[in-house]
Amino acid sequence: MAGLVCSKSGMEQVLVENEVQQVKLLDSVNDDHGGVIVELSEAMDLKVFASMLKASIALWRSQGKRGVWIKIPIELINLAEAAVKEGFWFHHAEPKYLMLAFWIPECAHTLPANASHCVSIVAFVMNNKREVLVVQEKSGKFRGTGIWKFPTGGVDEGEDICAGAIREVKEETAIDTEFVEVLAFWQSHKSFFEKSNLHFVCMLRPLSFDIQKQESEIEDAQWMPWDDYVAQPFVQKHELLRQLVDIYRAKEDETYFGFPPVPMASKHPGQKSYLYFNDRDLKSSKV
Amino acid sequence: MAGLVCSKSGMEQVLVENEVQQVKLLDSVNDDHGGVIVELSEAMDLKVFASMLKASIALWRSQGKRGVWIKIPIELINLAEAAVKEGFWFHHAEPKYLMLAFWIPECAHTLPANASHCVSIVAFVMNNKREVLVVQEKSGKFRGTGIWKFPTGGVDEGEDICAGAIREVKEETAIDTEFVEVLAFWQSHKSFFEKSNLHFVCMLRPLSFDIQKQESEIEDAQWMPWDDYVAQPFVQKHELLRQLVDIYRAKEDETYFGFPPVPMASKHPGQKSYLYFNDRDLKSSKV
Repeated sequence: MAGLVCSKSGMEQVLVENEVQQVKLLDSVNDDHGGVIVELSEAMDLKVFASMLKASIALWRSQGKRGVWIKIPIELINLAEAAVKEGFWFHHAEPKYLMLAFWIPECAHTLPANASHCVSIVAFVMNNKREVLVVQEKSGKFRGTGIWKFPTGGVDEGEDICAGAIREVKEETAIDTEFVEVLAFWQSHKSFFEKSNLHFVCMLRPLSFDIQKQESEIEDAQWMPWDDYVAQPFVQKHELLRQLVDIYRAKEDETYFGFPPVPMASKHPGQKSYLYFNDRDLKSSKV
Repeated sequence: MAGLVCSKSGMEQVLVENEVQQVKLLDSVNDDHGGVIVELSEAMDLKVFASMLKASIALWRSQGKRGVWIKIPIELINLAEAAVKEGFWFHHAEPKYLMLAFWIPECAHTLPANASHCVSIVAFVMNNKREVLVVQEKSGKFRGTGIWKFPTGGVDEGEDICAGAIREVKEETAIDTEFVEVLAFWQSHKSFFEKSNLHFVCMLRPLSFDIQKQESEIEDAQWMPWDDYVAQPFVQKHELLRQLVDIYRAKEDETYFGFPPVPMASKHPGQKSYLYFNDRDLKSSKV
């Protein structure tokens, strides 16, 4: 049999060939790592799918394939049962599909891990009157507490952190901003279920000043005198927030330098990729 | 009916009560956001589960519940079909379970997003002979290319970046290290499927020097003269790698300052949480 990579006895090869001839196979495309990807798109009988999957695995095994991915759209979730019976496990899921994975070789699998982190931003936006842009949220743990906090929000998959920060400030307050730099970041764990969260504290420069709050999420928004923000018991109580206040103060005094995003050539033409680093130190070291 | 939050006509309430009395309900626990969590653990008939789910949703609706989570272990995946028919979508999946979500109120849901990023580290480890710790990998795109690269690896969910970097260097080379700081970071998009990746370039100080390479993943590992590493065409060809070389050089000259992890009080007693920031600038600004 052409393309045979695994060593197989003659008898096994005949069995594989027979099986392949008797049952229709699943449509698949090769991936870049010696594996195959199946995307189900049509409803079918569970038993028919089970037979096709069994025969397809036999063929892929005979071809020396490694990882097998099956993407099941939500409307065909009844078919997942057959894949699980063949030894597939869940790799990840998005609202409209479940991705199952299977590893054919005898060795431990080298498939990539599922995403492990959410990414969010905290936006420090100060105008030239020493006022900071703050909001009160309609939901979440600060709801109804009267606490004024910096705009925060999630960075989407496929979105640059600097773009996500500009978007979140715009959505919550209608203020246009220019991204300056990442001042600091921290991780939190088990933020939902077992996942972790990376929080990037970003400085942005305001380009507009008229606030229009987002009706759905924001209870209130304002430019607040910096000293009033700092004086809030909520800020004074938390070590991390006090530390951030020190950083904001040093930034105001122009004695602190974080990581601005420096554009780099990207693999994808027309797209920018950013390296975040302390370019001030690098420039002064080159002088 | 006690605990009724939504306003309902008397007739609807009677219907809900009747339904509740006729069909067994799913066991659930309340979450912290006005919703409920169901963890399935026992096999049951698909039709029975569908009836129980329908009755449970009617009850939760009458109680003013918001989000509903159903965690289905892989061995009970056949039951997912009934939840999808009721309007549930996939929230996320891990190897052994699928989490489905549903939103009862009429407004847009406020459930947290699925994890969007993988996190990985690149480890810059230099000894006092100006040699850097480099490896050749057994798999991946650099396999068989002869390219020597810094150790890299994934940070697990629930793992601190600084701990992940120390672990990866130890696993790949058996070298013990102390974490110094994050020198830079970048994002890449669509690293697998639609997910993004955050790459943290970390400096670590070696505490041991005898290399033992990891058999499963590492083809070879060595302490390589710094100038030989830099001279590799692979390093010279990429803008991002050339920029990192400039950063490593400035770090060697002690003119570059990145973000070391500074321990903060954590919500979880006995655990440390780290804020990564330019503490050198902050210290000098306080003088």
